[in-house]
Amino acid sequence: MTVTLPGPTVGVVGGGQLGRMLGEAAAPLGVELIVLDPTPDPPAAATTAEQIVGDFDDRKAIMELASRVDVLTYEIELADPDVLADAAEEFGIPVHPDPSTLRTIQDKLVQTEAVADAGIPVPEFVGVETKRLLSEVVEELGSVMLKARTGGYDGRGNVPVRSPDESADALQTVGGDAIAEQFVPYERELSVIGVKGADEIRTYPVTETIHREQILRESVTPARASQEVRDRAESVARDVLTMVDGRGVYGIELFETEAGQILVNEIAPRPHNSGHWSIEGAATSQFENHLRAILGWPIAPTDLLSPTVTANLLGDTPSRQSLVRTGDVSPVLADADTDAHWYGKREVYPLRKMGHITVTDRTRANGESEVAAEPLARARELRDGLGFAAE
Amino acid sequence: MTVTLPGPTVGVVGGGQLGRMLGEAAAPLGVELIVLDPTPDPPAAATTAEQIVGDFDDRKAIMELASRVDVLTYEIELADPDVLADAAEEFGIPVHPDPSTLRTIQDKLVQTEAVADAGIPVPEFVGVETKRLLSEVVEELGSVMLKARTGGYDGRGNVPVRSPDESADALQTVGGDAIAEQFVPYERELSVIGVKGADEIRTYPVTETIHREQILRESVTPARASQEVRDRAESVARDVLTMVDGRGVYGIELFETEAGQILVNEIAPRPHNSGHWSIEGAATSQFENHLRAILGWPIAPTDLLSPTVTANLLGDTPSRQSLVRTGDVSPVLADADTDAHWYGKREVYPLRKMGHITVTDRTRANGESEVAAEPLARARELRDGLGFAAE
Repeated sequence: MTVTLPGPTVGVVGGGQLGRMLGEAAAPLGVELIVLDPTPDPPAAATTAEQIVGDFDDRKAIMELASRVDVLTYEIELADPDVLADAAEEFGIPVHPDPSTLRTIQDKLVQTEAVADAGIPVPEFVGVETKRLLSEVVEELGSVMLKARTGGYDGRGNVPVRSPDESADALQTVGGDAIAEQFVPYERELSVIGVKGADEIRTYPVTETIHREQILRESVTPARASQEVRDRAESVARDVLTMVDGRGVYGIELFETEAGQILVNEIAPRPHNSGHWSIEGAATSQFENHLRAILGWPIAPTDLLSPTVTANLLGDTPSRQSLVRTGDVSPVLADADTDAHWYGKREVYPLRKMGHITVTDRTRANGESEVAAEPLARARELRDGLGFAAE
Repeated sequence: MTVTLPGPTVGVVGGGQLGRMLGEAAAPLGVELIVLDPTPDPPAAATTAEQIVGDFDDRKAIMELASRVDVLTYEIELADPDVLADAAEEFGIPVHPDPSTLRTIQDKLVQTEAVADAGIPVPEFVGVETKRLLSEVVEELGSVMLKARTGGYDGRGNVPVRSPDESADALQTVGGDAIAEQFVPYERELSVIGVKGADEIRTYPVTETIHREQILRESVTPARASQEVRDRAESVARDVLTMVDGRGVYGIELFETEAGQILVNEIAPRPHNSGHWSIEGAATSQFENHLRAILGWPIAPTDLLSPTVTANLLGDTPSRQSLVRTGDVSPVLADADTDAHWYGKREVYPLRKMGHITVTDRTRANGESEVAAEPLARARELRDGLGFAAE
């Protein structure tokens, strides 16, 4: 395999923090990125040569993008699979992951049916359109999580329903067709980052994800679950990776039930927030491996280098505002085991992902693979010191 | 210390591979870079938000750069120290390292005198302007390396003079005032990357540098020298860092004489080719620490993570040409211990630095600190497979 310099060029629909971190991984590889994003000067602008301003389903903009790159990918599920497929055909270039996979994943009911049809365990689920049906489902299954079939992210569009009389309000909140999933009493939530290459599948060590208000707050890798549970999680993730079409990195969110069973919660056809630890903690980051996979290059090792904890830095201002000042960053900058990742966002609003920190447990890098409570406590302490305030 | 998001913004004179790798380090830190370079779309373009096109001594362009940033630095010695000093004063911002240091370093005679005056060992040296003086010097000192006082880099402007009758040709080749340094029979060449922060100095583990035709070909870290020699090299580097003015990363090139003495060869007031190994091999890269230092942030750990070898990928085409194709990159991409770094250059010419590869000796990361011959052989083999050819 030869490479023409400069290049190859990858077109990315979406220029948020995932695009930014793809850009960080691309430069050493000699890979150039062009991102498409509706916002001028998005987070990825600092790490990519060029941006095209356009919506994620803007046919003209996506055609322009396709005309200038060697392969198309996306870092947001709002990308339009039909336009991507058309653009790829028009210019004779591949799209990864496959638009059909994106189409399946965009509809949570279709996604869950596909996973279940492949014989992979999921929570009990039912598609619901009416409050009458939802009430019946809640009568039968007990508490459920109601999720909008399309468009939800970061917990937006998800509403817990604990009794039939909450059905009307819940359906109104999710605003349309939905899927109701039985609440599973779970021990913890897990995530596996997987890479599907041209002829191989690799998984990263299993991550434990800690959510609050359905937004990821911290991740712990390796997950504090038994080896048996982690093996089962990896095996389920491999089944998912076998099922999906198209190369690339996938984030596979799982439940570990109290009985130690593994159920698939959701699949993301792209690098995932729960895999950011791989930048410091793995032999190769999820971002580099996504680029390698979509380009058809060999997948690089996904081995753990050292246990890590990450904590998201979320907007904590009362409203949307620009030009923000962080709290005291000195403790983060001075901590030898902590790395900061800022996403370069120009505005902050409540719960917006502004960055993350990674605490690497280097003292335990050799031999032991469990993360002690201490790095998690440290990550939380550093995170809590980093509030945002109006400038 | 608080940070205003986005920012801070750093202005960098020079947008070559060092600027590119500064950009790779800047994004996670939330630091934005603007680079000034005479070439549109220079290597740093892919990793920085903005470029200003202008020569390294273009007063108007440097003033524009200064007007838009919080601190000025440079990644090439051709930056103009007087203009930098004026721009810094005009806009009330710092320049690091100090322009006076850059001025001293730009003239190899002045640089060597300053080092010698500080009581730091250097080879015997004499400033020479005439062939008559040079002949006398060669009579007295034996073989010398004749170096242009200003403007030389990567061995350009350096000519070995072995007998008095070579004096006229040698002076003509270096093209002006020069410094003649006595040839020292040396065991090996070493380099220490040092960081001068607001109130601390740190050094990276000592690197062994292997040159051919006076261009760095490979580096080996830690250097294959005795612990005693490495301690002495570190001590000399600390003396140099104490002598220079202004914060930042410095590359300090050294000779280890056959007697085990350490002599200073040259100082670079910027991240250095011999420190690229730190991206994979050290707890913090030289590029991140340069940004931390010039911003007055705490310096991060410089510890060795694992022994490394780097090999430069140099242009091997017969002439300047654009659109090049590499040899087979598959072995590099498939090697689990090897990372490639491409500089995104649009043209290749003989001996131009197009990229580098780093082989990390992970098997020896724990305990032993010597690099075995094997990773060096591997790096050379991979490098030799990567020639450039016309597209």
